[in-house]
Amino acid sequence: MAENSPGFIDGKIVRGEDPLNLEMPFSKVDQFITPTEWFYVRTHFPIPKIEKRGWRLRVEGEVERPYELRYDDLLKMKSRTMVTTLECAGNNRNFLEPKVKGVQWGLGAVGTAEWSGVPLSILLDRAEVKSGACDVILEGMDGGELQEPKRPSGNVHFARSIPLAKAREDVLLAYQMNGAELPRQHGFPLRAIVPGWYAMASIKWLRRIMVTSKPFTGYFQTMDYAYWAKHGDLAELVPLTAMQIKAEIARPAAGDIVPANSNVRVHGAAWTSDAEITKVELATDGGSTWNEAKLIGEAKPNAWRLWEFDWETPAKPGKQTLIARATDSQGRTQPVERDSDRGTYMINHLLPIEVEVR
Amino acid sequence: MAENSPGFIDGKIVRGEDPLNLEMPFSKVDQFITPTEWFYVRTHFPIPKIEKRGWRLRVEGEVERPYELRYDDLLKMKSRTMVTTLECAGNNRNFLEPKVKGVQWGLGAVGTAEWSGVPLSILLDRAEVKSGACDVILEGMDGGELQEPKRPSGNVHFARSIPLAKAREDVLLAYQMNGAELPRQHGFPLRAIVPGWYAMASIKWLRRIMVTSKPFTGYFQTMDYAYWAKHGDLAELVPLTAMQIKAEIARPAAGDIVPANSNVRVHGAAWTSDAEITKVELATDGGSTWNEAKLIGEAKPNAWRLWEFDWETPAKPGKQTLIARATDSQGRTQPVERDSDRGTYMINHLLPIEVEVR
Repeated sequence: MAENSPGFIDGKIVRGEDPLNLEMPFSKVDQFITPTEWFYVRTHFPIPKIEKRGWRLRVEGEVERPYELRYDDLLKMKSRTMVTTLECAGNNRNFLEPKVKGVQWGLGAVGTAEWSGVPLSILLDRAEVKSGACDVILEGMDGGELQEPKRPSGNVHFARSIPLAKAREDVLLAYQMNGAELPRQHGFPLRAIVPGWYAMASIKWLRRIMVTSKPFTGYFQTMDYAYWAKHGDLAELVPLTAMQIKAEIARPAAGDIVPANSNVRVHGAAWTSDAEITKVELATDGGSTWNEAKLIGEAKPNAWRLWEFDWETPAKPGKQTLIARATDSQGRTQPVERDSDRGTYMINHLLPIEVEVR
Repeated sequence: MAENSPGFIDGKIVRGEDPLNLEMPFSKVDQFITPTEWFYVRTHFPIPKIEKRGWRLRVEGEVERPYELRYDDLLKMKSRTMVTTLECAGNNRNFLEPKVKGVQWGLGAVGTAEWSGVPLSILLDRAEVKSGACDVILEGMDGGELQEPKRPSGNVHFARSIPLAKAREDVLLAYQMNGAELPRQHGFPLRAIVPGWYAMASIKWLRRIMVTSKPFTGYFQTMDYAYWAKHGDLAELVPLTAMQIKAEIARPAAGDIVPANSNVRVHGAAWTSDAEITKVELATDGGSTWNEAKLIGEAKPNAWRLWEFDWETPAKPGKQTLIARATDSQGRTQPVERDSDRGTYMINHLLPIEVEVR
């Protein structure tokens, strides 16, 4: 990370200034809830300036009763609080060789917060979704002209769809983060939280909920935030959805110096989607032998699990390669090699980290 | 066209050698059926070498009875002959300013032939399509590794899907072109003919018919051969389908010299999709006044209509700008300006052609 020397804002690594992209130094992670001020910031366009008073959320499309909500209306509705891990679909991109386009995230485009707001199902029920509807488009206020070669003309708002079943199951429209009003950079006044999915789905600065009767094929789920799924020898373009299982090491960090012949606490976090982390293993010899780490606390759905391991460092000084590997209750684990059909996203292959024993 | 001096093969303009792309000089068009040797050739990969004996067509996917057909089986089935115009979705790309990527077709990536073969509906019925099926993927033998940035890994075969209703309505699997065996460069031994659609859908060198229960999102209908459709301020990526209405002038051609104060026959062809050409107009003054041309012969579904106009050329020598404009039975006509959401395809805005009166 040092070779990028990207500068810091409020203790976060600057991965881009226009639009603003800030990464949490992952070495800070040692508690279940990520403090709001550490939480990574991902934007695609300038951050919208929204006033509570003028803001409206429209609910429309394939519904019997389209309507608009004001901020005050939301506060009066039945609310729910949940702890959810959000990870950017491009987290760890900085580790890809050769380098690829996109924000060069290291380990820290991920965080866990407590979100409070109104379940999307309540808003959908109030609108009376028509039969035949299948998708719910969430659209943000953030937008602008795109620069990529295959782009739509004019202003494009960040928008993404969710199948109706998922939208009804557990999607939250959050106006609070960690017990306080949602900060501007995290989507004020209202953002979606889509548990278990990469965070591109958790649309910020919400302005519209649009129910549709056919799958949405907007820019951010076709030209961007999509991957190639193989079915036999057919490749199909599929929007990114579920987070892929992953363990990351918080400390020691790459390049750290650890004392020889000592007990060193190795710790980090691991997460998956639609399952529980059941095992985190650590190799301290580059991957020849794997030791089971201790999982900390209790498993919570769609939130990361902290883990730790007491490493008895070798007596002999020298470089050591640490690798963490997670397994979940569906039996999934991390691949050793990168799958190129994932493009520049869903990077969850094993990431060796070199430290120096001295 | 002269400034490109691209060379010729068999009287056709070479627009690419590897893969092979050959254009018919549109100035040759003066008969309803395009002779096979003039017909434009469009390939994306090396032309497959296929022997009748070893070739098989698989029909599979969401069907009760998947099966394989041999070439001889096809010849024994009920056949149909139809005249259909095929146009490359990138026809006229050479006229775009600024220049865009892709084969630089002039006017002649279009042609009309008589196709004979077996209706796709017969093959589908034999397979007993399951309820819930919606799409039919047609896959060719032609394939290879793609070079574009956002590509699937490995070999990709040229493939495209058609909604089941269209597949049953009028799609033909043709083994003859203009009364003779299908030539190798046009898809031997079997190609699809999808009437009214741009020709990327008329898959050549067929090897597989695959019925699916969800819309196919393969490379050639997402990353390529797709455009942005606007619904309010939402842009959706949509596969190219229907040909857009268009009239082209065969003669005089751009740069031709015509005698002053004479009767000059201006002629060409016009086509549309799912409608009849009802009017072709010609402006000889750059578009200030429009004169109705004479439509030749009878309207046939999904085939072009030839037209002609007797132009009394001005007495005064100088440059003159000719523009043809078609209208169809659905009231559609050609736009004056290019719509950038169409990317590098569906180019049917008015194309002025300059000639010299001397």
